[in-house]
Amino acid sequence: FHVLFHKITMGLLEFIKDYFLGFWDYETPKVMVVKNKKLGVIYRGVQFLVITYFIWYVFISQKAYQDSETRPESSVYTKMKGTALQGDHILDMVEYVRPSEGGDVISTILRREVTHNQRQGTCAEHFTVPSANCSKDADCTSREVNFDGNGQRTGRCVPYYNQTFKTCEIQTWCPIEDYAAIWEPALAEAINFTVYIKNAIHFPKFKVLRGNIKPNKRNGQKYLNKCHYNEKEHPYCPIFRLGYIAEQAREKFSELCRTGGVIGVFINWKCDLDLDPSECTPTYSFRRLDLRKNLPSSGYNFRFAKYYSKDGEEFRTLIKAFGIRLDVIVHGHAGRFSIIPTIINTVTAMTSVGICSIICDWIMLTFIDKNDIYSDRKFDDVIPTEFTISYGSNHSDLSEGVAL
Amino acid sequence: FHVLFHKITMGLLEFIKDYFLGFWDYETPKVMVVKNKKLGVIYRGVQFLVITYFIWYVFISQKAYQDSETRPESSVYTKMKGTALQGDHILDMVEYVRPSEGGDVISTILRREVTHNQRQGTCAEHFTVPSANCSKDADCTSREVNFDGNGQRTGRCVPYYNQTFKTCEIQTWCPIEDYAAIWEPALAEAINFTVYIKNAIHFPKFKVLRGNIKPNKRNGQKYLNKCHYNEKEHPYCPIFRLGYIAEQAREKFSELCRTGGVIGVFINWKCDLDLDPSECTPTYSFRRLDLRKNLPSSGYNFRFAKYYSKDGEEFRTLIKAFGIRLDVIVHGHAGRFSIIPTIINTVTAMTSVGICSIICDWIMLTFIDKNDIYSDRKFDDVIPTEFTISYGSNHSDLSEGVAL
Amino acid sequence: FHVLFHKITMGLLEFIKDYFLGFWDYETPKVMVVKNKKLGVIYRGVQFLVITYFIWYVFISQKAYQDSETRPESSVYTKMKGTALQGDHILDMVEYVRPSEGGDVISTILRREVTHNQRQGTCAEHFTVPSANCSKDADCTSREVNFDGNGQRTGRCVPYYNQTFKTCEIQTWCPIEDYAAIWEPALAEAINFTVYIKNAIHFPKFKVLRGNIKPNKRNGQKYLNKCHYNEKEHPYCPIFRLGYIAEQAREKFSELCRTGGVIGVFINWKCDLDLDPSECTPTYSFRRLDLRKNLPSSGYNFRFAKYYSKDGEEFRTLIKAFGIRLDVIVHGHAGRFSIIPTIINTVTAMTSVGICSIICDWIMLTFIDKNDIYSDRKFDDVIPTEFTISYGSNHSDLSEGVAL
Repeated sequence: FHVLFHKITMGLLEFIKDYFLGFWDYETPKVMVVKNKKLGVIYRGVQFLVITYFIWYVFISQKAYQDSETRPESSVYTKMKGTALQGDHILDMVEYVRPSEGGDVISTILRREVTHNQRQGTCAEHFTVPSANCSKDADCTSREVNFDGNGQRTGRCVPYYNQTFKTCEIQTWCPIEDYAAIWEPALAEAINFTVYIKNAIHFPKFKVLRGNIKPNKRNGQKYLNKCHYNEKEHPYCPIFRLGYIAEQAREKFSELCRTGGVIGVFINWKCDLDLDPSECTPTYSFRRLDLRKNLPSSGYNFRFAKYYSKDGEEFRTLIKAFGIRLDVIVHGHAGRFSIIPTIINTVTAMTSVGICSIICDWIMLTFIDKNDIYSDRKFDDVIPTEFTISYGSNHSDLSEGVAL
Repeated sequence: FHVLFHKITMGLLEFIKDYFLGFWDYETPKVMVVKNKKLGVIYRGVQFLVITYFIWYVFISQKAYQDSETRPESSVYTKMKGTALQGDHILDMVEYVRPSEGGDVISTILRREVTHNQRQGTCAEHFTVPSANCSKDADCTSREVNFDGNGQRTGRCVPYYNQTFKTCEIQTWCPIEDYAAIWEPALAEAINFTVYIKNAIHFPKFKVLRGNIKPNKRNGQKYLNKCHYNEKEHPYCPIFRLGYIAEQAREKFSELCRTGGVIGVFINWKCDLDLDPSECTPTYSFRRLDLRKNLPSSGYNFRFAKYYSKDGEEFRTLIKAFGIRLDVIVHGHAGRFSIIPTIINTVTAMTSVGICSIICDWIMLTFIDKNDIYSDRKFDDVIPTEFTISYGSNHSDLSEGVAL
Repeated sequence: FHVLFHKITMGLLEFIKDYFLGFWDYETPKVMVVKNKKLGVIYRGVQFLVITYFIWYVFISQKAYQDSETRPESSVYTKMKGTALQGDHILDMVEYVRPSEGGDVISTILRREVTHNQRQGTCAEHFTVPSANCSKDADCTSREVNFDGNGQRTGRCVPYYNQTFKTCEIQTWCPIEDYAAIWEPALAEAINFTVYIKNAIHFPKFKVLRGNIKPNKRNGQKYLNKCHYNEKEHPYCPIFRLGYIAEQAREKFSELCRTGGVIGVFINWKCDLDLDPSECTPTYSFRRLDLRKNLPSSGYNFRFAKYYSKDGEEFRTLIKAFGIRLDVIVHGHAGRFSIIPTIINTVTAMTSVGICSIICDWIMLTFIDKNDIYSDRKFDDVIPTEFTISYGSNHSDLSEGVAL
């Protein structure tokens, strides 16, 4: 081991010595030039392909000369607006939008199943619940909680509301939703509800801040109060009709009213910061996010309750809400000219051109008839044993041999 | 086609045969050494630049010897604290913080516009709504819903609350907010409200878990109850004063109270896992996320309601809340020494050094006077036709030609 | 400067002229073949290592022939189910799940501390608050708000509820939580609560949509109503028992009931789109996200209130809820064969093989005894001064020198 170590050290030292002696020498590989049309055409052809690929695809299409940043910091603020008549009741934003805080996920109610005046108490279990049907108390196990049921069994068998058959009595919020819920018609007016989406992004690397609302002195606030987004007519309006969103997502609004659904609102920022900053504007796209085809339990619904109190007793209105949930998803990409990626990609391009030689070498050495001649010239065979015998004869090797 | 296929197969076979015969041969490019100071200096200069770039920028600054991971799994838990007096009412956390669950987005109310005791009914539309002003019933179309209005018109023209002029009557939650809302003064005490931010991150690749709260046996829970974050004095305290956040985001708190705003709380983790794990601590920064300058409808507000019931009739208190929304955004980057990126980047560095030759070659061949001599030596021209005529004369070619 | 510019231009022009004259020439580096076993073995060994690394690690393990996409667009919809008995009260989904909208963060209550019937008024401060204990009115500063206290001091010193000692009176929601909260027992049944997680992902680059629910005609909706996820038995069931989640996260459920906790539900998609699409299924993993060991204030709790009104006076039930927050975190990675990364990585592999020569050169030049001979043959020294003196003698240089 010591011997090896010594050898390496000595080798290094010698290498360094040689290195410094020849430090200012310039080294360049020797090149063989073959004046052969076929090879030349292949060689230039491959070079052309590689250079074209780099210039067209890497530099022009992929903008490899730019330093880029994806995933900007994004802030989304949403607000819904609209009024709908539900029977004698008016539903306004406060009632059909949840959550109220206006973040990047906002849902609006399109249809409700309302169970009024639920109170803690005992009532008959719904008849579809397994083993809920009974004829006598013994059929109902006391204190049992059926997982698919609505509450804890009391052990009694009671008439099912105003029906003639009987089910097990349970302790729960009464009356149970399955029985007492009132199916309200869908809010057809919701097709005209609007959602205002304010999005500000920040690319920390480039220190660029952009927003999706254009400050416009001419029409300003008034414009923002009246406009509705439309790709062609109003591309800078941040207010979207629910009907437009559904249409763009290729969904029937009436179908959405029935089952609910989750729709993604995609805001795409592609910013070439070498151009004018005003070119950096978002595009919007819409797509339904919850899969549907052949799927059971597709759609979107949730339950919530309003709690009231009367004479110290709490009661609630349970609402099963079917609606649209809008998930605002922001994608961003910014690029700006930078010297380092330009250099790196140029170097990579040059290196790749060098690969041409490898391919052409292989072709030359296998397909061109005179390959023996070429390879003789290309390869300088050095057979060590020969050297030791006669130093002079090393000039008679094939490649550069001087056959005097 | 068959001929070509045959040719390729034969070529491959021959190639493989040749390959195995010369399998244990070592091949190395032939190099021309030019003892020219100018070229040497350029050559070494370019080499020096490239090597310096790689060592300094790529390895030291960008830590290319490390395997890295961005986007850690992050969990944020937030909790607000504080008490404020609003008239005779005390507002506590439960009332001014929404949502209550304490995720990565939390908002606090700074100012409220409260409309008490709204009930479903009919009342006069606000006079600023287009076409709401009327003098007789015929001016108001029954069942019409104006998009900017507050409800559905009944078709009657009624006196505007206690005023002398008249507006169309609408069915909605009455009285309407625009008329009846009480503007409460801002919660000036909110400047001292605190938000406790607990953040735990996990780098799955490195199996590293970190949290922003330092377990500290000496002061422990007591310290966490009392401290307020301050970059210099208390960098490990996870409790932030709203006033401090606004100050760091360069916003006036009184202005925020007026319009509301969205402020990003950025937690930045930069972890060099080659160092001691205790070095892996987060830094915090704060920036307002909703753009402001020249923008209409800047700020942050939302509406919600509290529902009550009296004698079976539902009424509500509508609250328009202006506040600060804090969006906690976690960035993370961890790196640890790894052999594979080290190898790859070293190879890239070496390849890039090879590019020097290309540049120097070009300079040599164009600017140095004796370039003919150099290029004669560098390039070994092979003219196939000559070979076929006289094999012996191939030694008289230009590059190594022996001009005897 | 003009001279330099002129020189560059002329150089360029000459370069272009030469370039076009020799445009169809094929250039290939000259290679020296050394018939030395030792060197050959080292050379082939290094080559073998590099090629093995690329084939095995880069191409097979890392699938470098694929174009890949991470960060799919993801949509998560969650819904909880279960019923629990709390004293005489039945808690159902509406009461223990927050927020109700079912996004990617959902929390369930496991234990509650309930303060009933809080009203705005004056009452005694809790005795643990600093400087709250008093013996006379002068001990309490009027209008002072203690940060750790519960409200604004009135300046009076009053008996502490039914106790003999006194504390300062404060204006707040009375009675204060610290005194009046009722600690309810934990919902032990919650171990059987289930959470239904629907996740749909979309890889925009590949236009691939996938969901975690398998449409299954045989058992369909019925299966989804009954199954519980289990890695081995029911890997395609999207319904998770809370007990199973806690177990997989290695947490004791009883401990979670006591302090609450945040658990990450990780959905990992690894899709090789070259295989059948049915292979692209998610795996689930679970991990507690809030750090615990030695940490004060670990766990998860939040406060919310239900508001009621009686005779125009508002009162509330304040609930401090300890629970589990589930953060659904979706990771995705998809890859599909693509020609461009295949080419790029093949080129990189070939280039890296070239690095072998550099290493072997160094070894050859330092360790092999006959290195002088090799280097003479490899390096063709060109000494310019000699050229100018006698052109003919340049053939007597060392490398190909013709020792005549």
